[in-house]
This record gives sequence, C-alpha cells and structure tokens, in this order.
Amino acid sequence: MRPIQQIDEACCPPLLSAPLADRDAAGLAGALRVVAEPARLRLLSMIASRPGAEACVCELTEPLGLAQPTVSHHLRVLHEAGVLDRDKRGRWVFYRLNPEPLRLLRAALEPAGAAVPS
Amino acid sequence: MRPIQQIDEACCPPLLSAPLADRDAAGLAGALRVVAEPARLRLLSMIASRPGAEACVCELTEPLGLAQPTVSHHLRVLHEAGVLDRDKRGRWVFYRLNPEPLRLLRAALEPAGAAVPS
Repeated sequence: MRPIQQIDEACCPPLLSAPLADRDAAGLAGALRVVAEPARLRLLSMIASRPGAEACVCELTEPLGLAQPTVSHHLRVLHEAGVLDRDKRGRWVFYRLNPEPLRLLRAALEPAGAAVPS
Repeated sequence: MRPIQQIDEACCPPLLSAPLADRDAAGLAGALRVVAEPARLRLLSMIASRPGAEACVCELTEPLGLAQPTVSHHLRVLHEAGVLDRDKRGRWVFYRLNPEPLRLLRAALEPAGAAVPS
C-alpha cells in the first residue's frame, strides 16, 4: 500500500499560480487521493452532518454498509491524513472533522491570486 | 480503463452538508481522481501559468519530461472531464483551462452552508 499522505501546508501548493515542481505535484496528488474514494467521501459527509461534526465508529458501520475492518481502514487513512481527529471515550473511538486539510485542498485548486479564507 | 468522469454539476454534490448517497460519492470520487494525478496537475499548472491560460501540446511535452503519447493521454482525460477546452489551429492543438470544473470541486469540499463564488 502506498504511504498515507498528510494533508498539510507542504502537500498543497497552489496549482494554478505557477508550474508545479514534480515533487509538489506528487504531494498534491497524494493529498487529493486521500479524499478521492467513495467510502471515504461518504464517511466524511456522514461525520460532518452529525451534531458537533463527530461520530462514533459504532454509528458509521451500519449506514455505510461495509464490513467494520473496511470502515476502520478508511477512518485510519482519513485520520493519518489529518482530515479526521479522533479520541477514545470508554470503549469507543469518536471521529471529528478537522476542516483545515479540506481548506488546504480547496486553496490548492483556487485560481491564481485568489485566497481561501480560513 | 475506467470511464472518464465529466466534472459538472451532477458530479459534485456538497460533501459536508448532508450524508452523500452511494452514487453521488462515486461521482465525486471519480471527479477528484481526474485531478489526483501528478502529471495532470503539472499540466494544469503549466497551462494555467501561461499567457491566456492556454498552451500548445508542442510546448508541454518537453518541460514535462514524459513521452508525447503519455502527455496526449493525460490532456485527453482532462479535456473529456471538461477541465481543459481545446481547439485546433493549423497543425497544433491548443489547450485552455476551463475554471468551472475546479470551482465545482472546490464547492464540493466547502463546509456546510458556505458558497464558492463563480
């Protein structure tokens, strides 16, 4: 499996303002691939739609209709990329949306000279 | 090869405002995969940085350092997705950035309730 891409300032140079270096293009492509996956997009949308933008794994598996190890894998990818924060409460792990990585991806896709507010 | 995803209104429902349906998630993932590729990101950045945000294939192959058929393949994917418009002038094909599909991708990654200006 390819290493999981952390979505931070380093990953996501603005795409449209100057020719991307090879390495920057690889970083941005890796960051985009983190979210370019249907189950991960559904998980993000399910978590973002819940009160407080957080959810327990126990609340995500059944509506997603995938096996629990598959769901856990996708949650781990999103967590390692920084898109989801997590904390353990009792026997359950809760995931919460961290909006910053998605803001960085949006900023990378902005037209030249535009700024995306935090 | 998977079919090429057209990046239009249908592909890109807002990710964070309500749980995505299976089919919507597949459409958005496909649209993101169009740009989640290093050579395609480099092509977009090279074209966007040129005067008039357009370039001839003849100007792209050498700086990209890839074989011409590979470059043509990536340009075709971007064109079929709607990210690049193209027209033929004499013996050369020119590609021009169409900003709308990237705007739709940014809008899909917006927080709930936010709007991305055109």
